[in-house]
Amino acid sequence: MIIMKAKFTYVGIRVTNLQKSIDFYTKLLGMQVTGKGKIEQTKGETVSLQSEKDSFVLELNYYEEGSPYNTKYSVGEGLDHLAFKVEDFDKTLEETRRAGYRTLLKMKAGGGRWAYIEDPDGIWIEVF
Amino acid sequence: MIIMKAKFTYVGIRVTNLQKSIDFYTKLLGMQVTGKGKIEQTKGETVSLQSEKDSFVLELNYYEEGSPYNTKYSVGEGLDHLAFKVEDFDKTLEETRRAGYRTLLKMKAGGGRWAYIEDPDGIWIEVF
Repeated sequence: MIIMKAKFTYVGIRVTNLQKSIDFYTKLLGMQVTGKGKIEQTKGETVSLQSEKDSFVLELNYYEEGSPYNTKYSVGEGLDHLAFKVEDFDKTLEETRRAGYRTLLKMKAGGGRWAYIEDPDGIWIEVF
Repeated sequence: MIIMKAKFTYVGIRVTNLQKSIDFYTKLLGMQVTGKGKIEQTKGETVSLQSEKDSFVLELNYYEEGSPYNTKYSVGEGLDHLAFKVEDFDKTLEETRRAGYRTLLKMKAGGGRWAYIEDPDGIWIEVF
């Protein structure tokens, strides 16, 4: 066994509208809100989401007007994509379209299929 | 129990130099390389990293020259930060400095301490 000195615990994405993002990740991707917080120093709000109990956390980071972190928003290249394993690939894409979100790209290789959809801020979400 | 239709499985970040990023995440943050792949369609390479067996995956995405995804790189605001829980906070910061990486911000609130360091592409890494 290797002694790990650090454990990768969560990923924080920045969102520009908390409610729109909560809706996307809970209603479309079935996550649950498992925590909320306010950080005075940054004038920020956080919402934690999980697919299952004890599973990896997706943290939504919202910065209110007047926060030094409420800067101009572009998704950028740092975050390539967030990936979700889905039970029914075709149904997921159908529900995505019905809910009004864009499908950006469909891929097929080696017996597997995956597609990219766009979250409310334009972050690429891979479903596979 | 709620039936989850999707499971948040990994986060992919884009990197501009695979070896530099592998060094950062394995040597400084103690992750292990658990997978490698090439995707012909995107002219891309992926490296999967994990802190522990069966834990959440950080995927490094590298696009070679000539790939349509080898676009100009700026970290952007989509990815706010990646967070790692560390055993020894002070030691981690000391090792970070010694390894030549920048500490961007130190925070203290409610009995907790956390800090942000920069990965080789400028992605903010929270250690707490």
